[in-house]
Amino acid sequence: MSVTAANGFVASGVHSGLRRNAPDLALVRSLVPATGAAMFTANRMQAAPVVISKEHLELAEPQAVVINSGSANAATGLRGELDARATAAETARLLGLAVEEILVLSTGVIGKRLELDKVLPSLRTAAASLSETGGADAAEAILTTDTHAKQALANAPGFTVGGMAKGSGMIHPNLATMLAVVTTDYPLNAGEAHEFLRTAVDETFNAISVDGECSTNDTVVLLANGASGITRSAAGDAAFDECLRAVCADLAGQIVADGEGATFTAEISVSGAASDLEAKAIARRIATSPLVKTALFGRDANWGRVLAAAGSAPYNGGYAQLDPDCVTLDLAGVRVVDAGAPQDVEPELIGAGCTIVLDLALGDGSASYLTSDLSYDYVRINADYRS
Amino acid sequence: MSVTAANGFVASGVHSGLRRNAPDLALVRSLVPATGAAMFTANRMQAAPVVISKEHLELAEPQAVVINSGSANAATGLRGELDARATAAETARLLGLAVEEILVLSTGVIGKRLELDKVLPSLRTAAASLSETGGADAAEAILTTDTHAKQALANAPGFTVGGMAKGSGMIHPNLATMLAVVTTDYPLNAGEAHEFLRTAVDETFNAISVDGECSTNDTVVLLANGASGITRSAAGDAAFDECLRAVCADLAGQIVADGEGATFTAEISVSGAASDLEAKAIARRIATSPLVKTALFGRDANWGRVLAAAGSAPYNGGYAQLDPDCVTLDLAGVRVVDAGAPQDVEPELIGAGCTIVLDLALGDGSASYLTSDLSYDYVRINADYRS
Repeated sequence: MSVTAANGFVASGVHSGLRRNAPDLALVRSLVPATGAAMFTANRMQAAPVVISKEHLELAEPQAVVINSGSANAATGLRGELDARATAAETARLLGLAVEEILVLSTGVIGKRLELDKVLPSLRTAAASLSETGGADAAEAILTTDTHAKQALANAPGFTVGGMAKGSGMIHPNLATMLAVVTTDYPLNAGEAHEFLRTAVDETFNAISVDGECSTNDTVVLLANGASGITRSAAGDAAFDECLRAVCADLAGQIVADGEGATFTAEISVSGAASDLEAKAIARRIATSPLVKTALFGRDANWGRVLAAAGSAPYNGGYAQLDPDCVTLDLAGVRVVDAGAPQDVEPELIGAGCTIVLDLALGDGSASYLTSDLSYDYVRINADYRS
Repeated sequence: MSVTAANGFVASGVHSGLRRNAPDLALVRSLVPATGAAMFTANRMQAAPVVISKEHLELAEPQAVVINSGSANAATGLRGELDARATAAETARLLGLAVEEILVLSTGVIGKRLELDKVLPSLRTAAASLSETGGADAAEAILTTDTHAKQALANAPGFTVGGMAKGSGMIHPNLATMLAVVTTDYPLNAGEAHEFLRTAVDETFNAISVDGECSTNDTVVLLANGASGITRSAAGDAAFDECLRAVCADLAGQIVADGEGATFTAEISVSGAASDLEAKAIARRIATSPLVKTALFGRDANWGRVLAAAGSAPYNGGYAQLDPDCVTLDLAGVRVVDAGAPQDVEPELIGAGCTIVLDLALGDGSASYLTSDLSYDYVRINADYRS
């Protein structure tokens, strides 16, 4: 599984000391020339590694990714940029690549300098231990408050897509404290990776929420090296697109299920909105509402809170369109409001999650979102943990 | 104090049975012809009492307000509107007023029909107990999860402004599950109340947040009856404006301090933004960030989370402008970031609250916001309570 499932990729994960008792430094590289793309957080407080990686992507095709946990290297000023550049430079030297072929990803505490005295020596160990079975170690080394590693795999005739991700708190659209690396041996031409990645990310990583936060560091990387040896075709492209979405969706689902303190998830579907964008605004608003999320934690089928959230979805300087007399809402498969009229029913919230299906009966816009509940443990983790 | 402090106002608060063991029905009226205004939630899922009160304001000057807790009469369909109209009609009959002179306010569980068999008989008791000392009873009768009544008073030479409010969860800009009634014996002409109220509300009730929620029912009412007998003047207008803001600010501050589960508050000031609107977007984003709020609960001076929130403030379809290299941040009076450079300091969060002062060094825009922390008790209250 993970980033070494596809042909021609090696990876490793080691302990540098940035985190006390856990592996915290990962490498992923392609053994043959690859093409690639990355998408980054929209947060204006972009971390140094985001700034550097964007710069490198402008200059060259990415061939390797270096990732550390324990420090986000964000809000670290000019020193932070120099530290990220030093990390990339040492990685390039060890792997025999150009510095601009290296992408740097960091996650952890904001405002703390990256400890190069720990990172640089450990990079040598990480480079020496790169292997075709190193995907699992790499997936472990990128975690922070995650309770387990997140890996995914999709196969199609002749090629493979594999990926790893981290993220549990601060998960939100626009890639909040979420790192993911996806590799494939499907052949793409230079410049093609971005569009495949963008559409897959929009429907997956950008449609999940744990706490509505958007981090300084979020990055999703795609590397494609063609090492499968198969010939490019339209059918192959379609199969690759499907595999890429499947891997991204799988990783995104694992992130929500592992949301900080999460005990219950909800799949939100909004239809009949005035537009797709308004549907997404409404789905996102429901997904990030503390009142909806605490009700889910209490297994309280409090559909009034769902509608109150839906009615206050920021859109275009106001709120997304909604007519209270037209809404139909199904909660956990039970119709609780039918064309504006409340039904005298009490859905049961049992098992691992539920569905929230809202039809606005205004237009053709639709969107989906995946969210988790808000529990005591979310508060505990984030009141105690300096992240 | 409260709504009966000004001359010519009477109020009452009684128990109708909508709530089990607490007063739940309040009346406020002016004894002499008054002018007035109200501001309502921007939530698209407007509750029936909001719809009816807006309609009444179009037709007449408000003379009395009837308020119930225990049921929001929201998401109740056409029946809900008929129930709100019946409440207004019975109030008008008992007080000898026209139905359009009555404003109806409700707060409580969404999606539950208003129990008219409890409300209508109790309105008679409420009308019979109207008195010039009834302000405190009224302030008690409008509460839900609030832990205490909220009243405020401001005096100027010759006149008085008094008010009451409820609200603890779901407090957010655009008046979320927040009800307030402010009365004054200062003389205003018909049509003038709205502008005074609008500017006061923008700077007070619309600049607080407990959990980022925006309710279906929020309403702020101002009634002005001129019963002080003083003559209108420019100096008087200025004094009235100041008193009105003071009363609104006092009530807003009480709401935040009584936020569900709140143990700590933060006064957020943003300056140097590209515009006032962008400053407000950034201040609001900090004020509603679960990661900032859980850090406050943990008394963790986690300024990285403040900057991460500031960098992801929704504005105009993107994020408000911010340059990481220019930001200066003071937390609890200690400079933690100076023109983008982190300082090696650790502010202490002690006492009842702290200040968060962010200078973006981009322009002249500024804004303030008041928020509370996110505690275990917020989760407990909202996982257990059907609101």
